[in-house]
This record gives sequence, C-alpha cells and structure tokens, in this order.
Amino acid sequence: MIPHDDRKPTIEGVLAAARRIAEIVPPTPLLPLEIHGTQCFIKAENLQPVGAFKIRGGWNRLSQIPAEDMARGVVGASSGNHAQGVAWAAKRLGMPATIVMPNDAPAVKADNVRALGATIVPYERLSEDRDAIAASLCEQTGATFVHAYGDSWVIEGQGTAGVEVAAQRAERGLPAPTRFVAPCGGGGLTAGLALACPEAEIIPVEPEGWDDVTRSLIAGEILSVGSNPPSTSCDALQTLATRPINFDILQRRASPGVTVTDRDIREAQRFAFSRLKLVLEPGGAAALAAALAGKVPIDAGTTLILSGGNVDAQGFAAVIGSAD
Amino acid sequence: MIPHDDRKPTIEGVLAAARRIAEIVPPTPLLPLEIHGTQCFIKAENLQPVGAFKIRGGWNRLSQIPAEDMARGVVGASSGNHAQGVAWAAKRLGMPATIVMPNDAPAVKADNVRALGATIVPYERLSEDRDAIAASLCEQTGATFVHAYGDSWVIEGQGTAGVEVAAQRAERGLPAPTRFVAPCGGGGLTAGLALACPEAEIIPVEPEGWDDVTRSLIAGEILSVGSNPPSTSCDALQTLATRPINFDILQRRASPGVTVTDRDIREAQRFAFSRLKLVLEPGGAAALAAALAGKVPIDAGTTLILSGGNVDAQGFAAVIGSAD
Repeated sequence: MIPHDDRKPTIEGVLAAARRIAEIVPPTPLLPLEIHGTQCFIKAENLQPVGAFKIRGGWNRLSQIPAEDMARGVVGASSGNHAQGVAWAAKRLGMPATIVMPNDAPAVKADNVRALGATIVPYERLSEDRDAIAASLCEQTGATFVHAYGDSWVIEGQGTAGVEVAAQRAERGLPAPTRFVAPCGGGGLTAGLALACPEAEIIPVEPEGWDDVTRSLIAGEILSVGSNPPSTSCDALQTLATRPINFDILQRRASPGVTVTDRDIREAQRFAFSRLKLVLEPGGAAALAAALAGKVPIDAGTTLILSGGNVDAQGFAAVIGSAD
Repeated sequence: MIPHDDRKPTIEGVLAAARRIAEIVPPTPLLPLEIHGTQCFIKAENLQPVGAFKIRGGWNRLSQIPAEDMARGVVGASSGNHAQGVAWAAKRLGMPATIVMPNDAPAVKADNVRALGATIVPYERLSEDRDAIAASLCEQTGATFVHAYGDSWVIEGQGTAGVEVAAQRAERGLPAPTRFVAPCGGGGLTAGLALACPEAEIIPVEPEGWDDVTRSLIAGEILSVGSNPPSTSCDALQTLATRPINFDILQRRASPGVTVTDRDIREAQRFAFSRLKLVLEPGGAAALAAALAGKVPIDAGTTLILSGGNVDAQGFAAVIGSAD
C-alpha cells in the first residue's frame, strides 16, 4: 500500500515552498525564445544543481519532515531525477536516503544518486511496483516515504517553478504568465504549476503511448498506460498512472495534453544543443518538442518548462551526431 | 592598415553600454558552482542569443555608428563569434554586414552568420591578414570596420558582462566581484572586465602556444604568437597579437594569465555537459578548464566567464563520447 496524507496542496503551500526554495537555490533562468516567428519563454530547470526541477519537491518535502522522524531517513522511488532531488535534500539535511530505481535508469542518474550518498534498490520497471517496494522498505525501517508526485509537499515544491516565472516576468515588466507547457509523468509538476498560477493554462506533454494523464483528463477518471506500452526515450516520464491528489487538480485546471514522438524529442534535443546551448534529457525536452512540432499554441505569455538534462553522454552524442 | 580611433574606452562608456545592452537582451545567468570544494560563480555567456558574449561588443559598436554611415554597412573579421555578434546587430539595425572569416571556422558559426544575412569573405588563417582584408573592403565600400577587440566601443560592450555580474551579486546580497577568470583571444573581454570592475583581479586564460597576451604582460610590450603556433581546439582564441588599446588596460590591471591544453579544454567541456548541462565550445570552456585544472585561484568572489557555445555537433559528440 502506498502511504498517503490527507493534506491538500494549496497555493499558500506553494508560496511557502517558494520561500524555502529561494533560500537554497537561485531562480533558474527564464530565457526568451522565438519559435516559428513567435516569441515565448523557456524555463531552464535543467540548470538546477541536480540537473532537474525535482530538487524543488525533494527539498520542500524533506525539509518538512518532523525532527523526530529525520534520523530514520527517507525512501523514494524514481527513474533518477526525483531520486537526485531527494538524495540532494537528504544529504543537506543529514538524513539517510534509499532510492528504489529501475534497473534501466540512465547511468548518469544512478551515478549522481550514489555520489550524493544515497542507497539504490533496483527494480524491474514493467513487472514490479516501485511504490510497493518503497512502502515495504518504509514499514521495515520507519523511514518516510517520499512519493515522486503523489504528495502534497512535492506538488507544492514543483509549483515553485511557476512562482519564479511569475516573479521573473514581473521584474521585466511583463504580465502574469498565461500558459505553461510542461513535460508530464505523474503530474507533480503540472499540478504544482496549476496551483501556483491559477490564471494560467496548463498543457501536459507526454511521450507517445504514455499519455495516461491526457486520456484520464478526457475520460474524467484516472486511467493507466496500457499493459504493453511502447518503448520511449523519455525515462523520466514513464509513470504508469497519475494519482488522485494530482488528478483532482489537473481535472479542474489542465487542458488535455499532447503527445510527442521520440523523433520530436530528438529534434528538440538537437535544437537545444545548437541554438540554446543547453543539454536536455529526452523527457526534459518534451515541452520544447511539442512547441517545435507545432503541437501546442505558444505566445508571449507562454513558458515551456525544460525540466531536466540528466542524459548519458553516449546517447546524447548519438542524438546530436545524427539528423533523424 | 587597420583603422583605429583615438577614443579611449572608459568605465563611463562601459556603463552606457550596459544600459544599451539591457534594452535588447536579458542578463545571462550567474550560477553558483563548487569546484574542488570551493564555491565560485559562472557567467553563462554561451546562453546569449548568438551563443557568445560577442553580441555585447557588436551591439554597442554598431548602435553607435552615425546615421549617415549606416547604409554603407559594416565589415568585421572573426572566426565566428564576433562575426555573429556583428551580424546580429547589423540585422537588427538594418545594415549590410560583411565578415572576413577563416576558411577553417566551425561550420555552425559560418551557418549562423549566413542565417543572420551577412556575407562571408573567406581567408587563410595563418597566411593572410584578416584585418588588412577587412580594411581593404572598407576602403572600397565606405563600410565601417568593426575590429573584434581593438575598438573602444567593442571593449566597453564586452565589459558589460562585468557590470551584470556586479549587479547580480548585489541583488543576492553578495559583495562586489573580486576576480574574473576569462578566456582571452585579443583581449577585448578581459580589457572590458578590467574597466567594468576596477577593484577586481583579471586573469586571462589562453590556449597553450597562443599565450601572446600573457607573454606580452610579462615582457611589458606587445608580443605576437610565434610564426608556427601549435594547433588548438580553441578557434575563438587564435588571435595573433593583442592591440595597444587592449594592452594599455591589461598592463595596468591584468595578472599574467595562464594557459590551458586541449585536454584541459575537453575535460571542461565534459564537466559542463554532465554537471552544468551547458554546451561550451572549446574557447568558451577555457576559464572553466583553468579552474578545474587548479591553474587559477578561485573563491566566492570569483566569476569564471563561459564565453561561448558555438561548437559543431560532430566535434562535441566526439569530446563527450570519450574520456581522454
């Protein structure tokens, strides 16, 4: 059973999280970008210390663990970015961390998690339930389970990216953000952005065949990815289903999303390399891929979230070295 | 003969340039970075619209050309980054631009210059004098020659990177910058930083065998690189000699610099890829390379300038795909 809390994520919680995050990391850059002649913005979350936005939710969750529970540590389950966010926060707070991680996770993510002092428990992505393994570990040790997206503090933490965008726009004399296009796995980031910026449209972007959130939004109930989903380069977005805490928010606020192909993703990674001088992992390039492919509307109020850049060198070299 | 002006670059000129630059591009990110356990900062000039800091000097120079001279256009000579800065500014100002560019320049740089609407005149890097070719073109057409570094407005423009760093530090409650480590070709950036931040130490970093500025600083007079310099990956830093307008400033302000090897550069490019999620061209990685190799002192007052990211995909793929 997956532990849960009855605490609801709120905009007040996002704002409190934003104050906590501002104490530990500077805002990531919000950069102007013209796509097909239209000006929009990108938020470079790949430039976070752990190479992904997940440091936000990880820090917000771990820093709120009661003092008496800290010594027993935390357990997370993640293909690698949430893992690094949790491991980074745990190291800084002096807590032990264990990460349940699929055995096909990119080496760079596993290496970074180990370098941050966390212990990795591997599992088989499609045949084992990572959350169940994590919950079992917590029962044994009394550690706190930190869900990758179905957690109120995590959602509020991810939403701080939206608070930053709003503040950065205001500093430049621009009106409030009107649209976020964001990579979507379980819906932690998209739900957080929806809370942070209640007036903005939220468009989730999922890999082809892993569009459970979009299908759920259309169906009006939580649906899972099929039992035999296609392969995708987006390791960070391979979540099997969103959770009620995320879906309750997204159902009220998000547009049904769009899907991108691995080819769209590679195009976006090459564009980021050659034009933006940014390294993006496949999942981190999903929103940019959707914009470049003309699959989402963009305008001067739109921010594309570049969510992460943790990609193995060989794979990245192959992508930028080819043109397909 | 190379045209020159008697106008001296000044800190007031740098501050005026900073106001002009602020109107057209947002500040590039100043990001914290820990190297060998010591905290310092990096200034990500590779994230400029043309992928390099040269947009600063290009814009500052071209925007000051008298109205009656604008229609006759500009001529620049550059391996590609100054070229793009000039071409970008010329396009925005509606001026024709011609760039004298070595025939071994990275394809990405030539492509970008053409995409910005400029005309390229190729030359042989080691046997022809690019400045003489450019000067001759100007005599024929009446175009304004924009030297890549030996120009007061260009120097003042490049110095605006230092103004931004000082402002970004102040916004975060940090004291004024005390040291800049910067890639050095002809000395436009280093001279500009020296003017912008009169209290800061300036350390130029040059490729091995192309350390004419360091040798000049030690000798107390301008020396050229030897007649048969070694090959270097740093196409952007292959200038044969600095010029009096730069040297006069550097002699008063800069420490004799340090040199980095192509191997140091590759290490820095890989570090930027895997840890910073930033794409750096060889020359743009020189200051980071010096810091990683322990060749320069760093501390919390130190900023390493990451000066550019215009690198061909095949070459970059080869660097990140290997470990040497």
